[in-house]
Amino acid sequence: MSMYAVGVDLGGTKTAAGVVSGDGEVLFSGTIPTLSRDGSAAILDATAALVAGLRDKTADAGIAVGRVGVGSAGVIDAAHGVVVSATDAIPGWAGTALTAGLAARLGLPASSVRAVNDVHAHALGEAWTGAAAGTSSSLLVAFGTGVGGSFVLDGKPVLGHRYAGGHVGHFASPYACFDGAPLPCVCGGAGHVEAIASGPAILESYRRLGGSSPAADTRAVFALAGSGDGVAAGVIGMAAAAAGQAVGGLANILDPEVVLVSGGLADAGERWWQPMETALRAELLPALTGIPVRPAALGNTAAVVGAARLVLEPAVSAPAGYSSAQTSRRN
Amino acid sequence: MSMYAVGVDLGGTKTAAGVVSGDGEVLFSGTIPTLSRDGSAAILDATAALVAGLRDKTADAGIAVGRVGVGSAGVIDAAHGVVVSATDAIPGWAGTALTAGLAARLGLPASSVRAVNDVHAHALGEAWTGAAAGTSSSLLVAFGTGVGGSFVLDGKPVLGHRYAGGHVGHFASPYACFDGAPLPCVCGGAGHVEAIASGPAILESYRRLGGSSPAADTRAVFALAGSGDGVAAGVIGMAAAAAGQAVGGLANILDPEVVLVSGGLADAGERWWQPMETALRAELLPALTGIPVRPAALGNTAAVVGAARLVLEPAVSAPAGYSSAQTSRRN
Repeated sequence: MSMYAVGVDLGGTKTAAGVVSGDGEVLFSGTIPTLSRDGSAAILDATAALVAGLRDKTADAGIAVGRVGVGSAGVIDAAHGVVVSATDAIPGWAGTALTAGLAARLGLPASSVRAVNDVHAHALGEAWTGAAAGTSSSLLVAFGTGVGGSFVLDGKPVLGHRYAGGHVGHFASPYACFDGAPLPCVCGGAGHVEAIASGPAILESYRRLGGSSPAADTRAVFALAGSGDGVAAGVIGMAAAAAGQAVGGLANILDPEVVLVSGGLADAGERWWQPMETALRAELLPALTGIPVRPAALGNTAAVVGAARLVLEPAVSAPAGYSSAQTSRRN
Repeated sequence: MSMYAVGVDLGGTKTAAGVVSGDGEVLFSGTIPTLSRDGSAAILDATAALVAGLRDKTADAGIAVGRVGVGSAGVIDAAHGVVVSATDAIPGWAGTALTAGLAARLGLPASSVRAVNDVHAHALGEAWTGAAAGTSSSLLVAFGTGVGGSFVLDGKPVLGHRYAGGHVGHFASPYACFDGAPLPCVCGGAGHVEAIASGPAILESYRRLGGSSPAADTRAVFALAGSGDGVAAGVIGMAAAAAGQAVGGLANILDPEVVLVSGGLADAGERWWQPMETALRAELLPALTGIPVRPAALGNTAAVVGAARLVLEPAVSAPAGYSSAQTSRRN
């Protein structure tokens, strides 16, 4: 078995890929815009071309790479490599035969291409060579445009029976409330963590609370907070506290060896991280005191590395709950 | 290997044990009061005597039973069979060498006795022969004196890195709030699910909201609700909604094949179950719509059966996250 694989991180706006060694090192990499408005076939064509280019480069170095792992936006049926559902970020993505489509375009056997959701790939990368390396379990929660997460247990992301596991933005938060009513959530529900703790939620909170300056985006709210805008500082602190409270509660439930917090908000500095970690630790049961809480370490390559891991070490990273579900169906 | 084992369910007030077959049938059983005020040694003596009596009965039937599984109150280090921590229900229970103490008293090798927390045993029993039989993953949440749970994945309860996994009563609930302040929780925190959705919390809510009749216990609040007391009906409905919202959020996070809801409140009838299930389903992501939500099926024998399963099929029920944690420490 080749000790190299291509890992692909397919998101709503861009697609990154890299040739990853058996040690988790990225040898060659490339990034293209995701053709999210052009339909599934165009996305698969462009992704396959990106992967083929990397395979050519690697072949020039005398290395054959015959396996491809993909972390993709959307809910991904990891057993069949099919997109179960996806947001409007990629219209028409739901229903796409992701792994079969790529395998056919690359001339690879279908079994050489595997896929999971991108947050699971992200967490798997961090668990392999990143901030959770060497641990037996880790919980990663990412706060950015949305709120997502993945619980990696014994080297395998817990994908869930319907591949919907990791939707950690969609449970109730006491903070996700205004004037006595739960805030609407993008999922169609209300009062969820994502409705108060995501990046867009910070912008909405600022506008809702009558922030005095026009703020074009979440970044602008952070800038306003930095220049002394009390409303901006307040809504960031509230979003961070909601995030920390949610992650602390999840830690009590899952008791992972380490907690990783990532995403655009985690990268925004102490103004967010400090109240987040304070709220997180306030929520912990005595047994969890001292649990390591770390930022992710691999940056943008985490999902590429984790996606490659899917096919580099399939026995280890086969999604938990999947193999036996298949077995029990055969019985 | 013998196809029979003794399963023990050791709780704060009583200890049940049964001889369980490889098919999960209970052949002989017995129950004693837990000597919770008499210290660990007395509890172990009495438990060993209960187990020995069952082994004698089984021997009379020509069957040798050489293995014992225990589901015990408290946080249990399943690797070493030691009680990590416990509530005041059994003073001095923390630190007890549970499996070694029983093995010595029964003249069995230490490796023949294993233990986990009783809620994990309960869930394992239901996953084996109860309401989650045949599923690849299940989430059980029990609402009674406290709120506890267990996520069983591929036949193994997810015990957590510090054996604290399953503390599903200790995350934030928007309902766990009164006059703008989070309600205190028995864990030392505040605003948690258990502070509003446990049995004792229902009694406290009734008193806090000025229920017009004296209510001696939670059962009395249910009786008052049944006879038309609006405050009693209201607090039960609120506790049930908090419970359902919490379980729905957990389902979104873990995506189990099936959800089981158990405990004294789940057994209290439609007055609690109906608003609980309504709130649960309101919380679900579209991907989870239609997830089965069932009451537990095995009643009081669930933990006995699950505890026996620990030693009847150790390869299957070895606690997830444990074996590899040990391995990584050796590396």
